[in-house]
Amino acid sequence: MTSCHNAVSLHEARKVAIFGGTHGNEMSGVTLVNLWTNNGAEIQRTGLTTKPFITNPRAVEKCTRYIDTDLNRAFTSENLSAPRSEDLPYEVRRAQEINQMFGPKGSPEAYDVIFDLHNTTSNMGCTLILESSKDHFILQMVNYIKRAIAPASCSLLLYEHPILQYATSRSIAKHPIGLEVGPQPQGVLRSNIFESMRVIVKHGLDFIELFNGGMEFPPCTVDVYRVSESMDYPRDTNGNIIAMIHPDLQDCDWEPLNPGDPMFQTFDGRTIFYEGSTVYPTFINEAAYYEKQQAFVMTKRETLVANGVKASKI
Amino acid sequence: MTSCHNAVSLHEARKVAIFGGTHGNEMSGVTLVNLWTNNGAEIQRTGLTTKPFITNPRAVEKCTRYIDTDLNRAFTSENLSAPRSEDLPYEVRRAQEINQMFGPKGSPEAYDVIFDLHNTTSNMGCTLILESSKDHFILQMVNYIKRAIAPASCSLLLYEHPILQYATSRSIAKHPIGLEVGPQPQGVLRSNIFESMRVIVKHGLDFIELFNGGMEFPPCTVDVYRVSESMDYPRDTNGNIIAMIHPDLQDCDWEPLNPGDPMFQTFDGRTIFYEGSTVYPTFINEAAYYEKQQAFVMTKRETLVANGVKASKI
Ligand SMILES: [Zn+2]
Ligand SMILES: [Zn+2]
Repeated sequence: MTSCHNAVSLHEARKVAIFGGTHGNEMSGVTLVNLWTNNGAEIQRTGLTTKPFITNPRAVEKCTRYIDTDLNRAFTSENLSAPRSEDLPYEVRRAQEINQMFGPKGSPEAYDVIFDLHNTTSNMGCTLILESSKDHFILQMVNYIKRAIAPASCSLLLYEHPILQYATSRSIAKHPIGLEVGPQPQGVLRSNIFESMRVIVKHGLDFIELFNGGMEFPPCTVDVYRVSESMDYPRDTNGNIIAMIHPDLQDCDWEPLNPGDPMFQTFDGRTIFYEGSTVYPTFINEAAYYEKQQAFVMTKRETLVANGVKASKI
Repeated sequence: MTSCHNAVSLHEARKVAIFGGTHGNEMSGVTLVNLWTNNGAEIQRTGLTTKPFITNPRAVEKCTRYIDTDLNRAFTSENLSAPRSEDLPYEVRRAQEINQMFGPKGSPEAYDVIFDLHNTTSNMGCTLILESSKDHFILQMVNYIKRAIAPASCSLLLYEHPILQYATSRSIAKHPIGLEVGPQPQGVLRSNIFESMRVIVKHGLDFIELFNGGMEFPPCTVDVYRVSESMDYPRDTNGNIIAMIHPDLQDCDWEPLNPGDPMFQTFDGRTIFYEGSTVYPTFINEAAYYEKQQAFVMTKRETLVANGVKASKI
């Protein structure tokens, strides 16, 4: 219950949603949301309403990432403002529905916080994905979560990039936050991954409850990995992949990749080395990113400063 | 080059196929078959013709297990003898085509050996799947492979069960053999899994070359895990899964499961213990088996005796 002099007043966060099944084969979020839909006691907190919600039910039913197009890239202003039509891809229609229910994106009526639950086949551990380096509410929340789960750890990935940032499901909230937990294969539920995700959501809700209850959170710093670039697999002239992630890089998410380090291994046994300045790769060998032509995402480390925050009682 | 007195004479094995993509999202086999289709030098052996073949190209293109139905369950005599029709599920039509090319199943024209390449999300390591305890050619081959890859290891799974055995793609060959290598998520290619599979296929082909070349293989014994039963996830009265593989069992394929050992963990935190005699579980938490209502497959250890074999020169 620290008090401080330079806390910024922010609106209370009363409307909270937890999205699962934005990708229908990422089972931790699907299972948690279904569980909490049946019995919400675990996610109830004083002073807020928390709505668990399956965003892509048809993909969940088929246990596939999506039906027509990636829902987690579908929340563009173009899609959201398109005239309603049965000819639109399923996920675009669904994005419009979700935007009506939890947005509209950018409006005062939008939900305050949306937790969006994802799994990855990459060895990323627990990762919180931020969409803005200037959302001090979220910066304070992730700082709170990191402290609460210690000595377990949690990486912070900042997707704030002119090209690589994408229009997520959660982006309709005032304060969007993604959870990405792995490694877990698509279509599989692993108890360790499931429990890690569950604990993080619970701490996130605790933070909101404390914030709404009047607690001031003093200024702090948070260390993030900022997405800087994406790396494709080596390909032949026909566009076919000719190499795999090198065994020395596989599963080494968040570890430094230095110039001269092995990066790919071609099918005929050659090693391709990394050239360039030191980066911290993540989403290494994520199943869903083959079609996005991403072997991994490169990040740079950075320390962000969060203002102190407190709830304004208007 | 051992000689022995009780070697059984068997036909030479001249026609060999390597199937990949029987499940379209199992990337090691898909990648190896595509590689060998472009350049077959690695799988050429004296005295045999080896055909690499993508069995379910539409599923491979969509990177999904199957289109309409599981191809690796489709090679029943009922399906194979069904009148050709566009109304049949895609995989049934495909099974008929494959049976024409590599069978017909049970006929003298059928291929001698089919290697069928699979991946699993389970921590099974390298596994060779046998369909008969009496196929002495295959027993000798797996014995040869096990010795060739030592000190690396390879488990032998015997799917010879009145109910649980199923009509595989490879079952149209005189000597079917499945390779199952994991853990690897669906849609992902891991270099370690890829290379393990590649080495096993190469030793298998070496065995056939030696056999055709006149080498006698003396009687031997092979230790197998025989499939005895299948275990479903705990479910509520609506059929919904209410528990996960227990963390003490997760990734422990081939290790003994004794009465009283933890088996499942319910979403509300209870442990469900195993009751029954000691078994050796495998396919633990395989993604594709949720829909088949299998949390894992139980096996019993058994030692098989293989006759000595040699090729008859007819
Ligand atoms: Zn996802
Ligand atoms: Zn398979």
